[in-house]
Amino acid sequence: MASHSEHSGHDVCGTGFKHLTPVREALGIVVKNLPKKSPAVETIPATSALGRVLAADVVSGVDVPSFDRAAMDGYAVTAEDTYGASVTAPVFLRNVGSVPIGVPPNVHLAKGQTVAIVTGAQMPQGANAVVMVEHSKQRSDGTVELSDEVHPIENVSRMGEDVRRGVVVLKKGTMALPQDLGMLTYLGIHEVTVARRLRVGILSTGNELHEGSEPEPSKIPDVNRPSLKGAVQQLGCEPFDLGIVPDDRDKIRNALARGIEKCDVVLVTAGTSVGPGDMVPEIIDSLGKPGMLVHGVAMRPSMPAGLAVVEGKPVVSLPGYPVSAYIAFLEFVPPLVEHMLGTRFLPRPTVKANLTRRVTGVLGSRTYLRVTVRSTEEGLVVEPVRTSGAGILSSLVQANGFIIVPENVEGYEEGQLVEVELFRPLEKENLVE
Amino acid sequence: MASHSEHSGHDVCGTGFKHLTPVREALGIVVKNLPKKSPAVETIPATSALGRVLAADVVSGVDVPSFDRAAMDGYAVTAEDTYGASVTAPVFLRNVGSVPIGVPPNVHLAKGQTVAIVTGAQMPQGANAVVMVEHSKQRSDGTVELSDEVHPIENVSRMGEDVRRGVVVLKKGTMALPQDLGMLTYLGIHEVTVARRLRVGILSTGNELHEGSEPEPSKIPDVNRPSLKGAVQQLGCEPFDLGIVPDDRDKIRNALARGIEKCDVVLVTAGTSVGPGDMVPEIIDSLGKPGMLVHGVAMRPSMPAGLAVVEGKPVVSLPGYPVSAYIAFLEFVPPLVEHMLGTRFLPRPTVKANLTRRVTGVLGSRTYLRVTVRSTEEGLVVEPVRTSGAGILSSLVQANGFIIVPENVEGYEEGQLVEVELFRPLEKENLVE
Repeated sequence: MASHSEHSGHDVCGTGFKHLTPVREALGIVVKNLPKKSPAVETIPATSALGRVLAADVVSGVDVPSFDRAAMDGYAVTAEDTYGASVTAPVFLRNVGSVPIGVPPNVHLAKGQTVAIVTGAQMPQGANAVVMVEHSKQRSDGTVELSDEVHPIENVSRMGEDVRRGVVVLKKGTMALPQDLGMLTYLGIHEVTVARRLRVGILSTGNELHEGSEPEPSKIPDVNRPSLKGAVQQLGCEPFDLGIVPDDRDKIRNALARGIEKCDVVLVTAGTSVGPGDMVPEIIDSLGKPGMLVHGVAMRPSMPAGLAVVEGKPVVSLPGYPVSAYIAFLEFVPPLVEHMLGTRFLPRPTVKANLTRRVTGVLGSRTYLRVTVRSTEEGLVVEPVRTSGAGILSSLVQANGFIIVPENVEGYEEGQLVEVELFRPLEKENLVE
Repeated sequence: MASHSEHSGHDVCGTGFKHLTPVREALGIVVKNLPKKSPAVETIPATSALGRVLAADVVSGVDVPSFDRAAMDGYAVTAEDTYGASVTAPVFLRNVGSVPIGVPPNVHLAKGQTVAIVTGAQMPQGANAVVMVEHSKQRSDGTVELSDEVHPIENVSRMGEDVRRGVVVLKKGTMALPQDLGMLTYLGIHEVTVARRLRVGILSTGNELHEGSEPEPSKIPDVNRPSLKGAVQQLGCEPFDLGIVPDDRDKIRNALARGIEKCDVVLVTAGTSVGPGDMVPEIIDSLGKPGMLVHGVAMRPSMPAGLAVVEGKPVVSLPGYPVSAYIAFLEFVPPLVEHMLGTRFLPRPTVKANLTRRVTGVLGSRTYLRVTVRSTEEGLVVEPVRTSGAGILSSLVQANGFIIVPENVEGYEEGQLVEVELFRPLEKENLVE
């Protein structure tokens, strides 16, 4: 049905749309129409917080280290006792014991005394510096010869040197990394408040779609729900399967209404163009205010995409062609999730590579070219994956990156050095030949 | 204990090590000593394969599309019937029906006939091209006026045009992306064979470590297990907690032996330096051949790291300092996992930024500098996070990237444009002002 066409309908510029909204403007319109509210939160064990978005600043309630610690193996001393010490003029201090690690020191240094200490052990009272073991010699008379002078706090990790009580250690909106989980443990924080994962509904429409494991005549498998489910999971969101519905107004309406009720964001594929069978935007519009905000986006592929807000939730109308659906998802859904969770994702890695042939975008549109970057003796080269259109899913499977041609650029010349956003790794040399 | 020192011991160059092995060479040595075998595999539903490593090529058993389909809304025709058609000289064909989407066509076109068709619908027998709806006019006498000529297969998606039966669609070693899940569905493939997730054991050693929720005098929380658990999960591996053991030879030995038995890779933190309390490398060596292969690596921090192979499994001896442990993990564990699974990870994203001040590495060592990149009116600038050493975990929490100074570079000057590997996003402008 018309849902799978990007080119049906009549209009002056041949797109079927009266107006194409630039991608960034489209996102801005949606965001302006979303309620200004913080994400829903939940409290979870800190050890489960990997990749979750902190919903509040994490403030340290303790000093780290929580006591002065030796930063080197050697001898804890009163710094003043070592002044002037050198290889030619060592000082001699009485060895009054040793401080093991993990045990409170049971000595109190008096003038002229020292204790052996290991890295990480608590400094005993009266000591304020450590002479490194390299500059020491134990003598049989119970003294230690020290051939280096140290100033106060030299070779000591001071209480609070890493983190001071009361400082903000992790800001609200941080997506927790492994080292952040370590930090939470360090601070004795065992639970954190994070943004609840967004639930993203995924609905496919189209009489031609089948889901059974056996092929059906004249039907095709639904590719979009599995792809989008994976894409939603990659964002750390929870996919919610709204199934396949045929091109039936009531069935689409009911499925969308269910999605809007159950989910934080709803994605619907196909039926988004301007042909007679393309009823999705109109149905979305009927579900609540403000409804459809953008229909027709200045991007290729995915031009028929639409964006709506219904009951305070974004509804994204994606084209039916799998490549278009996926690229429109990449363009719209990650920024919306970032906005709703108050966080930022890491960008895709990029490389610069030389074009093996000329490529063109569509002037006025943001154009995603599927490309393959490979390493040659002359450096990285990039070539477009040959495809006859947005229907060719294998283009996204063969490619390892995108060249994104901005609206104001017509294309790039053969040999030109261009930036490629990678979504698959390049082949690398092996660790052993 | 000495495990937490990076500088204990005696030697000519002041590192405590007689020889420091370059990182890449160290990895090569480990890989050479690993058994040459394919990873263990398991068969899972294709819909669960996101991020999993395909253990065999995926070959298409079908043509995609599986039938000729209209690529546009319009009229299916025998191309020859339209030859010469134009706006001034249209052709008139008899309209003998329409082909809905998802239903086998019940017409067979004869010469002079046409049927209405929508994008994605199966082409009826006798038809070999589609005239776009824009170039058609329905007339009241049951004919259709067509004002454009089409050549055979014009506006038709041919059977097998996207994927031909028998071709390799996804190569062994591919880490499955969302679009790959779509492709598997497309091909009617419901199960895939993937490399079993690697199980990575994580052991912390040190008398000073405590795990309880309450602080203990002179002890510190174990930061490394939570950090490394997260880092292992980020690689798609399964962390296996081997707990904390004190600096006791038998206890460390038993825990390591258990890890080697239960896991595919074992990580152990602390006790890896060259001081008297640093017994981990020696214990690893006693557990089996070839044992320790590298001890002391030309990198900063993390120089005391060690690498071993025991019973065909890599054992990575990481320094006790959390920053050192984490950076040594980043340097060694992802490449080993890539090698063992026969796959590649995406690289970290990079940006170029101007240094706000001079930075230095350690000549001969690969140096990880923790830095903060931020956007200014003059572009991106980068500055090192001030830290007094590898003990300062907050440096990894405050930083958003690394500058990695290679072995043969002494440092970079203030103002120099340098590459930064990002592990946290930069602040971006908001979608709405």
